[in-house]
Amino acid sequence: MSQSSLHVVILAAGKGTRMYSKLPKVLHQIGGEPMVQRVIDTARSLNPESISVVIGHGKEAVLAQVKRDVNWVEQNEQLGTGHAVKIALPHLPEEGRTLVLYGDVPLTDTATLEALLEAAGDEVGLLTDVLDDPTGYGRIIRDNGKVVAIVEEKDADAAQKAIQETNTGILVLPNAKLAGWLNSLQSNNAQGEYYLTDLIALANRDGIAVHPVQVAASYLAAGVNNKVQLAELERIFQKQQAQALLKAGVTLRDPDRFDLRGRLKHGQDVVIDVNVVLEGEVELGDDVEIGANCIIRNATIASGSKIAPFSHLEGCEVGEDARIGPFARLRANTKLGNGVHIGNFVETKNTTMGNGSKANHLTYLGDSEVGSQTNIGAGTITANYDGVNKHRTKIGDDVRIGSNVVLVAPVSLGNKVTVGAGSSITKSCEDNTLVLARARQTVIEDWIRPEKNQK
Amino acid sequence: MSQSSLHVVILAAGKGTRMYSKLPKVLHQIGGEPMVQRVIDTARSLNPESISVVIGHGKEAVLAQVKRDVNWVEQNEQLGTGHAVKIALPHLPEEGRTLVLYGDVPLTDTATLEALLEAAGDEVGLLTDVLDDPTGYGRIIRDNGKVVAIVEEKDADAAQKAIQETNTGILVLPNAKLAGWLNSLQSNNAQGEYYLTDLIALANRDGIAVHPVQVAASYLAAGVNNKVQLAELERIFQKQQAQALLKAGVTLRDPDRFDLRGRLKHGQDVVIDVNVVLEGEVELGDDVEIGANCIIRNATIASGSKIAPFSHLEGCEVGEDARIGPFARLRANTKLGNGVHIGNFVETKNTTMGNGSKANHLTYLGDSEVGSQTNIGAGTITANYDGVNKHRTKIGDDVRIGSNVVLVAPVSLGNKVTVGAGSSITKSCEDNTLVLARARQTVIEDWIRPEKNQK
Amino acid sequence: MSQSSLHVVILAAGKGTRMYSKLPKVLHQIGGEPMVQRVIDTARSLNPESISVVIGHGKEAVLAQVKRDVNWVEQNEQLGTGHAVKIALPHLPEEGRTLVLYGDVPLTDTATLEALLEAAGDEVGLLTDVLDDPTGYGRIIRDNGKVVAIVEEKDADAAQKAIQETNTGILVLPNAKLAGWLNSLQSNNAQGEYYLTDLIALANRDGIAVHPVQVAASYLAAGVNNKVQLAELERIFQKQQAQALLKAGVTLRDPDRFDLRGRLKHGQDVVIDVNVVLEGEVELGDDVEIGANCIIRNATIASGSKIAPFSHLEGCEVGEDARIGPFARLRANTKLGNGVHIGNFVETKNTTMGNGSKANHLTYLGDSEVGSQTNIGAGTITANYDGVNKHRTKIGDDVRIGSNVVLVAPVSLGNKVTVGAGSSITKSCEDNTLVLARARQTVIEDWIRPEKNQK
Repeated sequence: MSQSSLHVVILAAGKGTRMYSKLPKVLHQIGGEPMVQRVIDTARSLNPESISVVIGHGKEAVLAQVKRDVNWVEQNEQLGTGHAVKIALPHLPEEGRTLVLYGDVPLTDTATLEALLEAAGDEVGLLTDVLDDPTGYGRIIRDNGKVVAIVEEKDADAAQKAIQETNTGILVLPNAKLAGWLNSLQSNNAQGEYYLTDLIALANRDGIAVHPVQVAASYLAAGVNNKVQLAELERIFQKQQAQALLKAGVTLRDPDRFDLRGRLKHGQDVVIDVNVVLEGEVELGDDVEIGANCIIRNATIASGSKIAPFSHLEGCEVGEDARIGPFARLRANTKLGNGVHIGNFVETKNTTMGNGSKANHLTYLGDSEVGSQTNIGAGTITANYDGVNKHRTKIGDDVRIGSNVVLVAPVSLGNKVTVGAGSSITKSCEDNTLVLARARQTVIEDWIRPEKNQK
Repeated sequence: MSQSSLHVVILAAGKGTRMYSKLPKVLHQIGGEPMVQRVIDTARSLNPESISVVIGHGKEAVLAQVKRDVNWVEQNEQLGTGHAVKIALPHLPEEGRTLVLYGDVPLTDTATLEALLEAAGDEVGLLTDVLDDPTGYGRIIRDNGKVVAIVEEKDADAAQKAIQETNTGILVLPNAKLAGWLNSLQSNNAQGEYYLTDLIALANRDGIAVHPVQVAASYLAAGVNNKVQLAELERIFQKQQAQALLKAGVTLRDPDRFDLRGRLKHGQDVVIDVNVVLEGEVELGDDVEIGANCIIRNATIASGSKIAPFSHLEGCEVGEDARIGPFARLRANTKLGNGVHIGNFVETKNTTMGNGSKANHLTYLGDSEVGSQTNIGAGTITANYDGVNKHRTKIGDDVRIGSNVVLVAPVSLGNKVTVGAGSSITKSCEDNTLVLARARQTVIEDWIRPEKNQK
Repeated sequence: MSQSSLHVVILAAGKGTRMYSKLPKVLHQIGGEPMVQRVIDTARSLNPESISVVIGHGKEAVLAQVKRDVNWVEQNEQLGTGHAVKIALPHLPEEGRTLVLYGDVPLTDTATLEALLEAAGDEVGLLTDVLDDPTGYGRIIRDNGKVVAIVEEKDADAAQKAIQETNTGILVLPNAKLAGWLNSLQSNNAQGEYYLTDLIALANRDGIAVHPVQVAASYLAAGVNNKVQLAELERIFQKQQAQALLKAGVTLRDPDRFDLRGRLKHGQDVVIDVNVVLEGEVELGDDVEIGANCIIRNATIASGSKIAPFSHLEGCEVGEDARIGPFARLRANTKLGNGVHIGNFVETKNTTMGNGSKANHLTYLGDSEVGSQTNIGAGTITANYDGVNKHRTKIGDDVRIGSNVVLVAPVSLGNKVTVGAGSSITKSCEDNTLVLARARQTVIEDWIRPEKNQK
């Protein structure tokens, strides 16, 4: 491969009218990440000397959502792809070469671009796609393997229309020629725009060979102009991720019903049932099982833990051999020790639980610190919020909290405390105490019940 | 197009033996609606002068479930499609023309039928389908573009069997000829039935041209004879709806995991995550986000609201910028103001909540009226039912209800009331009061716990 | 078909390195059952005189998880398929014939194997597959319909490489020849293994015809070497099950989102919505409806019952016309009578409920016996666990338990008992009593609320 320095220009100024969205097109997400960020990340994988992103529509929104460690160039007028690259010229030295990518073509991979750069050498490289139905696309006219022209649909004769190899728009250009070529572009076309495509003719004029490289699959060069295409690429992306995880040994009960919007780090013998969504940074240890329909975001789950169906985890750490769910909700800053059990209709937030502790039914633990080997009875609630401030609840080791107990924070229970069912606990308790706060039971015999109202 | 008046006859008398169901075949649903209702609605889109539906098996059930603004004609004996149309003759004037549709062919669209009517003019029109494998279907024999015969599989020679264009059964006929033709039909076939198909030969005999129109896709004329076919058309129908929503700018994370059984009215930038089911009339304002696995039926959700995963909404109105779920259940007659928060394991029914009020955890609000800026503590329950009658709970503005509180209706809390955690409230409270109803906390030191029983 | 006795040898000794799993390959599951168990069950459907399973890697695990009513033969060294069958020779008499199957080829069906046995007669039968792309597979060389050789990819010339019929490895052999042939096998190949494939040449040498039978679809002979293939066969298996249920009249809203890992016995007019998972033994009566996203394991649900979405049932019996869910959790040993209602965020375990009883909101019933026509108020909890032992709660007929009640077991409520909302019940109550255990309500006027802390 040529050793000349590489620069990347990413065109990301379009509005995306057919997205019918306030969001600039390049910010729509694939796999949970804005498309343009994916393109920037792929560009970075090529180790270029610079990356320049041409922005326009929704400039503020783009700058707000995308990592800003690239050159930003603003295109105030939408005067075509040629104009867009021209605006980036100040960031492109006169030596080396420039790869042009698109912020709405999110799934081009590193291998494809490396092949393009390799084929181009110090001349021009053009990424092409062979389509079953090329109608509407610019056709690639080859001569001895080199591209001698791109003919647009409207200008193509019958023989040219039969050509299935089409222009993807992704190309690599020698910087030494770039400024001259861009300055020669004409806008005397129907749209009044300057087209990068016309550089192919200029290269041929100047005797610079244009080396085509065909993509291995169309999605690698597919652009997003509407939500139909966005959904298509999302599903392709998800299937690819699923295949990669399967190959690495993760069991997915249905690869077509799996979504990963971020990164999954996994151990051996991980089993993920149908319809699971993983988001952000997720880490699953050996033998972890994720039940059907779970949603897990930014979580670490240690070896041997089982997450039962319908569980919703976010921003939490789960120890080894834990049993979570079904219908469990672990919220931000939940840290559970080894062997912890969290059962159905239980919510935890900003709460730690020591090894072997359990909260199995209809419970809310918020802003709490629970020791180890403690059992939280069904229906227990930490009243952590007085309407204006949050307070903490501290529960010791080997505590047994009866059912339907409310713990009014701030409150602290020592080790081996027992709390009677139905108690409202407002004062802290020492170790080894039994605490009760409930009314005496009274009985009225032969009670006459209310009768059904006449309507 | 011919301007002669249009009449529609829909055949809907069949039993559907292979459905293995008590329900008459035409009442099985596609997209949440009985198939025959879909056909009636499509027929109506053609603005016909009359629609006649021929019913038979399950007559009472059909009449009970389908809108009754059409002519109902009863076919007591199943003597074939020709016989069925003949029964409808009293509703068909001698002028104009008659389109024959089928109650178990649910996905024929208006455009297809308009093309058929256009092609037919005042003669005969026949809808046909070109199949990869036409085995078993009646083949269309053409001469100069017109249909001269339909040859059934069993009567077809090798050349005819090679014909891929097949009869769909949908046709349009000139009323002037209809009675005569129907009366000429013979039942001297294996089934002893009168077949509409035989009208093609009669039209040719009488010098009336039969104009074929091919469907753009097979599903447009596909009939349902078993649950396999019902499921196939259901998924085709759902995919079509998903594509239409995508084109209109709705983001669907997975179009193959989306079900709409009714009508969706949506604003801009609506995002719907995987595995969502919408039923009935659903309206989603701008920027509404629906999390994975939500089920929403007959609901209006205003702009900016986010419905978190695993939420189940039915018969409710949600204001702007609300936060609902995960694991929220909004039931009939729930009306939530702007900025309301309903959290996990919370159920509302027949309840209104003012702007900015919150019920975030493990709560049941039934037959309640909650003011604005009020906070309902975790585990709060409105005891709205005394076993025979329902009573209402009224909660004012800026009220703070502690955790694990039960409000025994009928009861009313004024504005700015504070209710202590763990209280059972049976009497109404004035503005600005603090209300408590809980027992004093008692402590028993050095408590000896029960021991594990020997088994 | 030949009447000679049938013996089956199943090769199940492989490690499955590319599964990246501690679990031996043949124990990975399809449809909830270990692959090797499926192969054993299919073998048994042929009524063989013996079944011998050759085990090796993970021997203890295989023996622990698979029914042990077959001959187990241990292969200590992995010396190839020929070696594996040779080890099984002590279980194979000198008459009859032997069918060789594979523990990692789970979806071969009885019909395919019967066709193979029929074709083989007393000679050799070989199951083959015609592939679009046969690259890498052994090609079948035929002469007059009989197989004369199998040529491996590396030994194939261009003409042989063009052959699309490939070896599946499944074959049936005459026992009279088997020992001799196996003893003639050579291991002078790259892997140093003894290959069953070489028996084809030996059969030809000895003038024994090799009868090929082609599988109707590739999955019938497809092996599992990695998780990609495991997932592919899982989905094929699930689609087959779904199609069979559809044909039998079960309505599946989306056959691609249905998982059955066990056996379903169903009545008429059963409707199953999207994304349902059924496991173990499930029985659904007439008119049962299963809502979207339900997970049901080892359950019997009687006629007319509706299970609303997001319900999780395991090890339970539900009577007729019950209404369960949404968000219901029925756990082991739950037995519900006719017309029972279990609502949202309700958990039952080891509990019976009589006809017409209801627990509609936020309730936990554990180790309980509830009579008929009883209403359990919202937020009711049975405190069945004192931290070391479980105790039972008994509730009579026509009881009304108010909201937010805790019943501290062991406790018994008679018939027609009324329990006031918010009560903690620790002592048993006679019939017709009203029981209260709650504190008096006190009011503090003009309460000054806490203020927001300065941060």
